[in-house]
Amino acid sequence: MSVEGSNVYQGLQVHNSVVQPLLTDLYQITMAYAYWKSQKTSDTAVFDLFFRHNPFQGEFTIFGGLEECLRFLENFRYSDSDIEYLKTTLPSTIEQSFFTYLKELTAKDVTLYAIDEGSVVFPRVPLIRVEGPLIVTQLLETTLLTLVNFSSLMATNAARYRMAAGDNVSLLEFGLRRAQGPDGGLSASKYAYIGGFDGTSNLLAGKMFNIPVKGTHAHAYITSFSNPSELKTKTLRNLNNGKEQDLIDLTLSWRAKASKLLNICESQASDGELAALVSFAIAFPEGFVALIDTYDVNKWHYLGPKQLPIISSFGSGILNFCAVALALNDLGYKAIGVRIDSGDLAYLSNKSRETFVSIAKEFNLPWFANLTIIASNDINEETIWSLNDQKHSIDCFGIGTHLVTCQRQPALGCVYKLVEVNGLPRIKLSQDGGYALIDLLVMSVEDPPAAKTKLLCRHPFDQKKRAFVVPSAVKPLQKVYWNNGQITQYLPDLKEIREHVQESLRTIRPDIKRNLNPTPYKVSVSNNLYEYMHELWMQNTPIGELS
Amino acid sequence: MSVEGSNVYQGLQVHNSVVQPLLTDLYQITMAYAYWKSQKTSDTAVFDLFFRHNPFQGEFTIFGGLEECLRFLENFRYSDSDIEYLKTTLPSTIEQSFFTYLKELTAKDVTLYAIDEGSVVFPRVPLIRVEGPLIVTQLLETTLLTLVNFSSLMATNAARYRMAAGDNVSLLEFGLRRAQGPDGGLSASKYAYIGGFDGTSNLLAGKMFNIPVKGTHAHAYITSFSNPSELKTKTLRNLNNGKEQDLIDLTLSWRAKASKLLNICESQASDGELAALVSFAIAFPEGFVALIDTYDVNKWHYLGPKQLPIISSFGSGILNFCAVALALNDLGYKAIGVRIDSGDLAYLSNKSRETFVSIAKEFNLPWFANLTIIASNDINEETIWSLNDQKHSIDCFGIGTHLVTCQRQPALGCVYKLVEVNGLPRIKLSQDGGYALIDLLVMSVEDPPAAKTKLLCRHPFDQKKRAFVVPSAVKPLQKVYWNNGQITQYLPDLKEIREHVQESLRTIRPDIKRNLNPTPYKVSVSNNLYEYMHELWMQNTPIGELS
Repeated sequence: MSVEGSNVYQGLQVHNSVVQPLLTDLYQITMAYAYWKSQKTSDTAVFDLFFRHNPFQGEFTIFGGLEECLRFLENFRYSDSDIEYLKTTLPSTIEQSFFTYLKELTAKDVTLYAIDEGSVVFPRVPLIRVEGPLIVTQLLETTLLTLVNFSSLMATNAARYRMAAGDNVSLLEFGLRRAQGPDGGLSASKYAYIGGFDGTSNLLAGKMFNIPVKGTHAHAYITSFSNPSELKTKTLRNLNNGKEQDLIDLTLSWRAKASKLLNICESQASDGELAALVSFAIAFPEGFVALIDTYDVNKWHYLGPKQLPIISSFGSGILNFCAVALALNDLGYKAIGVRIDSGDLAYLSNKSRETFVSIAKEFNLPWFANLTIIASNDINEETIWSLNDQKHSIDCFGIGTHLVTCQRQPALGCVYKLVEVNGLPRIKLSQDGGYALIDLLVMSVEDPPAAKTKLLCRHPFDQKKRAFVVPSAVKPLQKVYWNNGQITQYLPDLKEIREHVQESLRTIRPDIKRNLNPTPYKVSVSNNLYEYMHELWMQNTPIGELS
Repeated sequence: MSVEGSNVYQGLQVHNSVVQPLLTDLYQITMAYAYWKSQKTSDTAVFDLFFRHNPFQGEFTIFGGLEECLRFLENFRYSDSDIEYLKTTLPSTIEQSFFTYLKELTAKDVTLYAIDEGSVVFPRVPLIRVEGPLIVTQLLETTLLTLVNFSSLMATNAARYRMAAGDNVSLLEFGLRRAQGPDGGLSASKYAYIGGFDGTSNLLAGKMFNIPVKGTHAHAYITSFSNPSELKTKTLRNLNNGKEQDLIDLTLSWRAKASKLLNICESQASDGELAALVSFAIAFPEGFVALIDTYDVNKWHYLGPKQLPIISSFGSGILNFCAVALALNDLGYKAIGVRIDSGDLAYLSNKSRETFVSIAKEFNLPWFANLTIIASNDINEETIWSLNDQKHSIDCFGIGTHLVTCQRQPALGCVYKLVEVNGLPRIKLSQDGGYALIDLLVMSVEDPPAAKTKLLCRHPFDQKKRAFVVPSAVKPLQKVYWNNGQITQYLPDLKEIREHVQESLRTIRPDIKRNLNPTPYKVSVSNNLYEYMHELWMQNTPIGELS
């Protein structure tokens, strides 16, 4: 493996280098051979890709992965080495001309309909419909499922975190180290961004997908310093007068003042931590963010919420941070904020905010009150709801494991079903109020429903459930995205898909989106389709004989 | 993206194309800059990579991912495009000569110690120790964690399935479509194989890692046929006399005979299914495996375990399979078996076995009794234990979602800790009986413990827990795997690692490996190390003052 050569490592190429026709189950090829052997090469088929249950005990899902599916179709072609591999893997009884046939296959005769990527979608509504030669459409199955399943799961998970956090809090994805493989991490970064995150710690995702990247330092950075005297670089240029000034001296003098104000005993604060923060501030004077919980944060908490702590290790971090930030301010730089990675996040964030406010007042630095507070310890969706209940002062969450592995439900169960009935356009109905009311599946031969016209909608399985609907607006769900070997729609970039997710979520009633006991969204079929489906089922179900 | 060019798509290259220095968190680079700015380029560090809790409520873990870590070190070098990207991403205040420094960095001054890949490992025992320049060793953190975390989790999960299934049942990984991204699927296939699976459905994993691939057909294949009359290819060469014979006629005549024997009414069996199975047998006469539950399998079950069903859809599948298999037998081919993908797997597998046994007897075909029965519906570790309790006749499990996403616990929490104490060789002790007794961490300056000599082992945290041990054998845990810019050990192939997993598991007492309430394995420290560690902790913990 060479890591040189920028051409190999730019854009989607890298991410998708494993997305190729052999990224599939063997049985797709054995079925293709059996179809070919049965002379079914000119048969055509329609497959629908959909899921049956929303993830995370919710009632909505965000559709992701469409662009990757289309890129896969664009490049669907077996390489010579693929054919060689298949020849050695399949039984030797296979006729050699099958491989010639396989080598010529492309997706040019396939038509792919899809809902826009980033849309809110619901169970049983086809996200993708694939029409075309039976053999080719069958061969696409596994790869399309792989590309849609995790992407949609991840985007949905991220969108749920965004709803929990609200619009005024930043969300950063920090999960690479716990992701399911290197590319699991890349997919997570990409679809977390689409779902509503603001950035990632993953540099390669930043490079490949143009996602904002964020990060500061680890506890190891703090613990690697033991004393300010070991610092070889001690000075920083004063932006006001251009002079190099000793940042350690300045920090120590501010620490003495802040110590009295905050009632934190200076002699007990960690000097190693101070050295680490000063060195980091010298490196990043305009982007100073400090991890302030390297030592045990709980001591402060033990004193109870009303008491200010006299001494505490957390006090060490916050005192040292304030001292460095005040010293930076003397030289014309504004610090960004702090990160807390352990302990009671609601309580510690509120304590940090109180501290910043008292410094802002005492030294007449109003911006100090609004320093950013980042929290990042094993946070999941429920943690955020719970922190909201407790009231907190966190401006930004850094979220890892639970987000990127979708710990609450690590797989979405999309399936790819051979559709017996050809051509079912998908229609979305809206009532007044601007919220989507129902997804309706109708037959391809039916006229689409009209706005302002009464319409009978039926539950797909339960004969007794039916309702008349007068839609205020009717919107087709799917568009032709691939036809005649080409992508036939404008493909939005990640930022545009990300905006579409939020727009799409706004069309959904709040009770469908809520965290606790959400209302299911209704998916119905037209009366014609209901009767056709049920007739077909009856025809295909053998009648038992009990004796 | 081009999918042509075999050179790009062979071997580990493909899988690892995203494993490069930028596959990391931004803060590693910001820390590197701050260290560089602090003139810490000649500082050295030791990091230990370990986890704190075994996954899946178990008491052991299989270590995976080492080879990928070593390949990463081999290729650790920032490309020109990486440097360009970093220049645009990091603050403009960064000194440009830092990028020159970064461009020159390699892992040649790093020494990496590791436990053998595929070994059974325990909490707090370092799987990998990295020694070398502080900046480089810090920069390796995220990527090493990413490579070890999911690989070890997956290998452990697979090993647990293997223990549940026993040695006489085949295990196939079928999870690609539900995996966490395309490479999540590839990693799953690879480490499931290492952990004890026999093969995968994932063709690309087969091609890249030389893992056996397996598969037959999907329900869609069965439902795409409606009648034997539609078959354009009906004949198969008789191996005994070289003549082409009509397989449909032969199958129909066998179906009539088998119908009477099995008491399954022939007229109710699906002719579409028969057509599908005949066509598949013509395509794969020497590898005929049939999916036999396309229609509702429950009907059979409703008749109760003692009654043979008169008519059932499952009866349709088993009857059609037997008819095709008997027809194939006439032409000199032996069928392989059946796959059941729904319903009560214990009951249906036993019914299938009874059917095969009665056919074997009636038609004097002893091999028919031993046809392979594959089961594959949403199986997890608990399902296998439960099936074992119920008694089943399954020869092979095909396992997807639960295996590849590690649904029960989708992340392993390995951490990478800066070690304050340099050089701690890891020693494994064994008592008589051949089972590993204890993992002991000693100081680098201590002599390693000797076999047959009494030794004080201490709990790392609890002062009161200590024990004398007389080891029958002493085995160092770690080896130097990387030194002077080179891999310094023979790297076993996947098959050898797979064998090492099973050998390593055999050294662990059964109560540690059991599914329910396993016994924790003991990890201790020597008396010297205990005292040194605790002295260090006391030095680094500030003393609180309560008022």
